[in-house]
Amino acid sequence: MASTKAWAVVAGVGPGTVAVLARNPSSYQDLVEDITKSGGHCIGISTDCSDSNSVKNAFSQIKAELSKTNSKLTAAIYNTGGKFVRKPFLKLTEDEFTAGYHSSTKGAFLFSQAALPLLLEATDAQHPPTLIFTGATAAIKSSPMLSTFAHVSYAKRSLSQSLAKEFGPKGVHVAHTIIDGIIDIPRTKQWKVSDFPDDKISPEAIADAYWYLHTQPRTCWTQEIDVRPYVEKW
Amino acid sequence: MASTKAWAVVAGVGPGTVAVLARNPSSYQDLVEDITKSGGHCIGISTDCSDSNSVKNAFSQIKAELSKTNSKLTAAIYNTGGKFVRKPFLKLTEDEFTAGYHSSTKGAFLFSQAALPLLLEATDAQHPPTLIFTGATAAIKSSPMLSTFAHVSYAKRSLSQSLAKEFGPKGVHVAHTIIDGIIDIPRTKQWKVSDFPDDKISPEAIADAYWYLHTQPRTCWTQEIDVRPYVEKW
Amino acid sequence: MASTKAWAVVAGVGPGTVAVLARNPSSYQDLVEDITKSGGHCIGISTDCSDSNSVKNAFSQIKAELSKTNSKLTAAIYNTGGKFVRKPFLKLTEDEFTAGYHSSTKGAFLFSQAALPLLLEATDAQHPPTLIFTGATAAIKSSPMLSTFAHVSYAKRSLSQSLAKEFGPKGVHVAHTIIDGIIDIPRTKQWKVSDFPDDKISPEAIADAYWYLHTQPRTCWTQEIDVRPYVEKW
Amino acid sequence: MASTKAWAVVAGVGPGTVAVLARNPSSYQDLVEDITKSGGHCIGISTDCSDSNSVKNAFSQIKAELSKTNSKLTAAIYNTGGKFVRKPFLKLTEDEFTAGYHSSTKGAFLFSQAALPLLLEATDAQHPPTLIFTGATAAIKSSPMLSTFAHVSYAKRSLSQSLAKEFGPKGVHVAHTIIDGIIDIPRTKQWKVSDFPDDKISPEAIADAYWYLHTQPRTCWTQEIDVRPYVEKW
Repeated sequence: MASTKAWAVVAGVGPGTVAVLARNPSSYQDLVEDITKSGGHCIGISTDCSDSNSVKNAFSQIKAELSKTNSKLTAAIYNTGGKFVRKPFLKLTEDEFTAGYHSSTKGAFLFSQAALPLLLEATDAQHPPTLIFTGATAAIKSSPMLSTFAHVSYAKRSLSQSLAKEFGPKGVHVAHTIIDGIIDIPRTKQWKVSDFPDDKISPEAIADAYWYLHTQPRTCWTQEIDVRPYVEKW
Repeated sequence: MASTKAWAVVAGVGPGTVAVLARNPSSYQDLVEDITKSGGHCIGISTDCSDSNSVKNAFSQIKAELSKTNSKLTAAIYNTGGKFVRKPFLKLTEDEFTAGYHSSTKGAFLFSQAALPLLLEATDAQHPPTLIFTGATAAIKSSPMLSTFAHVSYAKRSLSQSLAKEFGPKGVHVAHTIIDGIIDIPRTKQWKVSDFPDDKISPEAIADAYWYLHTQPRTCWTQEIDVRPYVEKW
Repeated sequence: MASTKAWAVVAGVGPGTVAVLARNPSSYQDLVEDITKSGGHCIGISTDCSDSNSVKNAFSQIKAELSKTNSKLTAAIYNTGGKFVRKPFLKLTEDEFTAGYHSSTKGAFLFSQAALPLLLEATDAQHPPTLIFTGATAAIKSSPMLSTFAHVSYAKRSLSQSLAKEFGPKGVHVAHTIIDGIIDIPRTKQWKVSDFPDDKISPEAIADAYWYLHTQPRTCWTQEIDVRPYVEKW
Repeated sequence: MASTKAWAVVAGVGPGTVAVLARNPSSYQDLVEDITKSGGHCIGISTDCSDSNSVKNAFSQIKAELSKTNSKLTAAIYNTGGKFVRKPFLKLTEDEFTAGYHSSTKGAFLFSQAALPLLLEATDAQHPPTLIFTGATAAIKSSPMLSTFAHVSYAKRSLSQSLAKEFGPKGVHVAHTIIDGIIDIPRTKQWKVSDFPDDKISPEAIADAYWYLHTQPRTCWTQEIDVRPYVEKW
């Protein structure tokens, strides 16, 4: 998931259909091909998550897909995109400080406003409709050089709680994940984390966590889950 | 699980074997019968969780079962037992205040000390060995009339964190659950929670959560998960 | 403080001098008069906290005051301004959602970047220099209809932690306050909070809290403090 | 305070009178002498905080002092005593694990039950009556080798919250402090904490914090405050 740099994955768009939203098509092309090859149906939609019109256009396409196949949207996942600068506070520019807010928090707002009306129509699905925000340890702990990342992570986590409380009783499961560790993707393959094996988070295991969250019945919903490798210090 | 009033479930005792520990045999007899009827193997062991000798005896029996079948312990679950008095603080007796500590926190200590050496031997199992503590919202929020319950819930949650940090790198997955809501069991059938359907937590869904935690690979372990019905306020 | 709608109070600007920053002069005129009458020196500076140039201009005036009197800035307080809309999530406009970020979080960033270099020059003052952010319960608890307020409150609290960790060792005391309750000011005089007397927070008591924070020696700094009336539920 | 190894300080026992409770008279003798020399009145009472009879006896003496001078109890402070073993979990004995509960948590219960009825009689004092629990970072963060200390610290913090919610509306201010760092006392004089000066917490500054908490009016009560040296990492 993270390996595709997609910032949003919209699942359940038609039987076996997945839509992947990312700014650059290069971020989702491999995934689209992989899913298509394995017999699934995957649409990539070039989207700038911080631009309300771009998000609206993406969801127009998704709605068109839904009506073509007479189906409903059952899962929407918002992954943090954005670039975060790690540097002394007094050296940050205003743009560096606020950049993450637009892609991460405002983007989460735009995405949620577009996805929730569709998810609300799917409350009779086998598994209740799910809106998941991918977060990080920076959502609960602030570091000295990472105010850029931490403040928008806190904000996004707060948004997930507000939405869970408002939309839970309406039948939409809203969850937030705290991914505490390095994800094991091609880009991080060579990174040294520790002297232990298996010290990076497997993307497949994250997918399992999201699938588990999605399949929880409404009598037993998780709002927040943390995941980390067994050797991670915290 | 809660319906059987068992305070500890020790799974993986031999192929398909489960041991259930509870003070009164009446607490586990139905469960033992149910599992046996459905083709599984379940042993009930009368145990006083707050008594170190009783816990040691229970684990001696479990070890005997393990060696009989040449197998390993792969999961141990500690459910809060104990009775908690809800009353004005100045009316609490010393025994009422401390009772829960013995059954809940000290019991969790005794259980963990007995289970961990066995779990450490099973780090090569298909799913890494798991120690789960069942907690409640009172583990993160104290109420005015429930200092009895809250203080031991905080203590047990703290214990789970210490153990996760010490035994995670050794290959044992330690997790804590926050069960926020009424569990849907015979005893609570008639309780009125809200005007909504499905407003109590399904025990099967809790079992699914525990199974999910147990099957997480060590690259992706959850330390804490909350579950609540979709209409629960929090 | 809140009664003046000032969003920033910059104390220690010269011996006994205070600068008050607010968008509308009407927000600080009364305060300036009050302080002047009682023998103090108070400067009001019309400032738009979400505009970096406006903040820079304000601090240029403050620096001019400082050099006139050959003195140092010893305390800077950032109060949340901004208006927050309480409404169902799907009815929020993008501007309504993001408005608070600009005034509250980005404003806190701009203010901190301008104030910290001056505070860093005052580490030899009798009381270590202090940067305080006024926060709310919404900084640690999200409500269903208040995602607007909560997400920026979380973000500001996160910023205060990052700054405390970076600038504490450099001699600047950074703190965050959680004001949990209604402040007793003219505008709230008629609000009914409870059946109890003294159920609103006295502004003088908040000022005492800030003064206490400011006078803490560097061996004993508080990063976060909550204050609420004795009858407040939480 | 910590330097005297006193586990409880009961202030306001008569005009200018303080009672200090500790198991060994050697823990309070110096303090009693110091206060007496400086013109105050200080009573040391040998008390085993984990023994209800001993605590009752101590408060009988305090009540006798109160009626002698026709005065009221206005402040009660519970400091953690007890010894905590830092060692691998599987090497802990049951006594080592539970020892801290008796002195720290059960002691806090016994102390609170004895102090609160007296504090409730002083709600008309100049400063509202105050009950303060001294806690540590271990009350919010569990370490791998310190489950002994952490679990009772969590429990005591939980107790302080329950009491604050129950007795706040009745006029008693209940607070909890998180002392994050080494206190600068004779015993720790030679300890190396960092390369910075002033890297240990001054006991006088802690006393100021407690005095500040005690003098807060009931419109503005703090439930929890953290204090740490400016160079402390957290």
